[in-house]
Amino acid sequence: MISNKMRDLVNSSSLIRAMFEEGKRLKSIYGPDKVFDFSLGNPNVEPPKEIVTAIHEILDEESPSMVHGYMNNSGYEDVREKIAAYTSEQYNTQVGKEHIVMTCGAAGGLNVLFKTLLNPDDEVIVFAPFFSEYRNYANNHHAKLVIVPSDKTSFQPDLKAFEQHITDKTKAVLINSPNNPTGVIYSHETLEQLSNIIKAKEQEYGHGIFLISDEPYREIVYDNIEVPYLLHYHTNAVIVYSYSKSLSLPGERIGYLVVHPKIEDVDDVMAGLNVANRILGFVNAPSLFQRVIAKTLGVKVDLSVYEKNRNVLYEHLTQLGFGVLKPEGAFYLFMKTPIADDKQFCKDAKAFNLLLVPGSAFGCPGYVRLAYCIAHDTVMNSLPAFEKLWQSYDMK
Amino acid sequence: MISNKMRDLVNSSSLIRAMFEEGKRLKSIYGPDKVFDFSLGNPNVEPPKEIVTAIHEILDEESPSMVHGYMNNSGYEDVREKIAAYTSEQYNTQVGKEHIVMTCGAAGGLNVLFKTLLNPDDEVIVFAPFFSEYRNYANNHHAKLVIVPSDKTSFQPDLKAFEQHITDKTKAVLINSPNNPTGVIYSHETLEQLSNIIKAKEQEYGHGIFLISDEPYREIVYDNIEVPYLLHYHTNAVIVYSYSKSLSLPGERIGYLVVHPKIEDVDDVMAGLNVANRILGFVNAPSLFQRVIAKTLGVKVDLSVYEKNRNVLYEHLTQLGFGVLKPEGAFYLFMKTPIADDKQFCKDAKAFNLLLVPGSAFGCPGYVRLAYCIAHDTVMNSLPAFEKLWQSYDMK
Repeated sequence: MISNKMRDLVNSSSLIRAMFEEGKRLKSIYGPDKVFDFSLGNPNVEPPKEIVTAIHEILDEESPSMVHGYMNNSGYEDVREKIAAYTSEQYNTQVGKEHIVMTCGAAGGLNVLFKTLLNPDDEVIVFAPFFSEYRNYANNHHAKLVIVPSDKTSFQPDLKAFEQHITDKTKAVLINSPNNPTGVIYSHETLEQLSNIIKAKEQEYGHGIFLISDEPYREIVYDNIEVPYLLHYHTNAVIVYSYSKSLSLPGERIGYLVVHPKIEDVDDVMAGLNVANRILGFVNAPSLFQRVIAKTLGVKVDLSVYEKNRNVLYEHLTQLGFGVLKPEGAFYLFMKTPIADDKQFCKDAKAFNLLLVPGSAFGCPGYVRLAYCIAHDTVMNSLPAFEKLWQSYDMK
Repeated sequence: MISNKMRDLVNSSSLIRAMFEEGKRLKSIYGPDKVFDFSLGNPNVEPPKEIVTAIHEILDEESPSMVHGYMNNSGYEDVREKIAAYTSEQYNTQVGKEHIVMTCGAAGGLNVLFKTLLNPDDEVIVFAPFFSEYRNYANNHHAKLVIVPSDKTSFQPDLKAFEQHITDKTKAVLINSPNNPTGVIYSHETLEQLSNIIKAKEQEYGHGIFLISDEPYREIVYDNIEVPYLLHYHTNAVIVYSYSKSLSLPGERIGYLVVHPKIEDVDDVMAGLNVANRILGFVNAPSLFQRVIAKTLGVKVDLSVYEKNRNVLYEHLTQLGFGVLKPEGAFYLFMKTPIADDKQFCKDAKAFNLLLVPGSAFGCPGYVRLAYCIAHDTVMNSLPAFEKLWQSYDMK
């Protein structure tokens, strides 16, 4: 009875569910503190106290019909105005409220953007490893995801390969920085070169190519590394932002799009995003949380647990002999598997109660992802398990 | 730069925007209380006080990581359990939490459902007049909207025409009761006959056809008329519900789907809805409001203003000589235009500062919709304008 495409999706999602159920089974046998679940990107740090305060204040001070009511599909004007002002000041740009669209998180934002831009059979380029939902989002709009590898040392995009993969059908290039699953931040040089290559190809093919940056982890960075701001590098650019991670509000579905004020056909793009928000069934980003966001601009979650976890894992795993990329941001660590088969490695890891996600799930076999947005104690307790896992290969 | 389909959508939506801007212009000239805006289905009654109380309580009592965190894509288990129990008791059915999917309002729910069920080129039947977004929702999933007329006296579906429009491609039949724009409630007989016709056609074509009821106005009814509950009539049935109207929370995007427990391939359907919620970018219905809903089951907005508006308008317009259908539910009144051209009638009405929506916008020319979810004073002040409008035709 369900559609053919959905049947395939249900089948593949039941594999993920099986993994999840297996984790639950292990926890019921060994106890939840004896199973080291690095599989989920679900922030464990509490939302900042300012969020609760803001909600109470809004309910006390603002009219309920306004707080919970309809507004323009792009979001409340005053909220967009505040975000635009904050963004302009923070990143030394000049965006106005008319360049902001409030969305149901980054997932909603990307779908609204794709609905606006993509014709069937258009191509969207991503760099492996990439967040696997991008494939579904492109598919929703009958576009084709084109996968370009990253440089295997830096995990910055392989620019030569990128250049070769751009075709007349390329409508958008989607990057994700700080990156899930690698924790890499795309550098100044990367953005500059991506932009140059795209501009040359726009000339060659005679039409625009959008550079889209998905940035839910923008605020989750370590060692004060700066995340370059895309609008300084490229004009046909859109930034997709979400508060799911920066404020630990993933269930509330709140985020926004920032469109470069000089993007080609800016009026059409903005009108299209407004229409897409409506007709895809989002209608608008949840209203109360739009108002909460406007009252808490600049507030961030406490990153100290993520940072401690990153440091401990990086040092310990490196010392053991694993090939680990030191994450600059997000709460993921990407590790080379000592055997080529990353799925087998994950099975082997499970014998030590370690739950990891194979790199294949991100289009990058031979690696695994550890999501370290978990309690620091769990990380500490997992270290002997990683040691045993390493030794199990060393012995062979 | 935007997609071809989106260009058409932007063009047609700019017509609606022009109407809206014209309303704003009139209000700035004549004063907002001298312009009678019956064009928007935006509830003007405040949300019940219980909503604010529930939010404060949840923030005080429940863990922030849980309240604002990720859950299963179908929604919190305890929330779905409470809704299932409430629904089962209220309508004397037996649905479990496994048959409920929390959605971003009814608009989100319909898109999630369509994504799950529809193959490209499948047909979805609706009855004119119908809520115009249905066309976009079908289009999002490359399905075809097939429009069947209603009986022009009762505005119940024309069952004979219905039977003739079902084909081998028909995958779903979408009804909306209480109806936007007519205010009609589909009767016991209508549901029984719709179901019988569908069952016979399922036999003929050898595959299931879903009967979907979009019910955001279920709670907005007058004179204690009962809205029959679809699950008692049909097995391949899904109810799409939203709290936008019953609790005046349209901005919060909260609603749910109820799937008949014995629907064909129930496990696939439920798994598909879960996947669709995720991949369309909704991910889940906003988390705080899921919890609010679970705490306020059975709470409703005060209907007295809507009812007063309905009564005054119905009596006055009928007395003047307009052909008006007495609304049984929702907050819309559907009125025959004294001239055939309903768009011209709306233009004429604007000369008296009356803002109405032509029936053509709902696939039913020769009528107009009045949305009476506005202040009672505005309705009272509009009566002389309707009188002048009527007289302007009488004179000709």
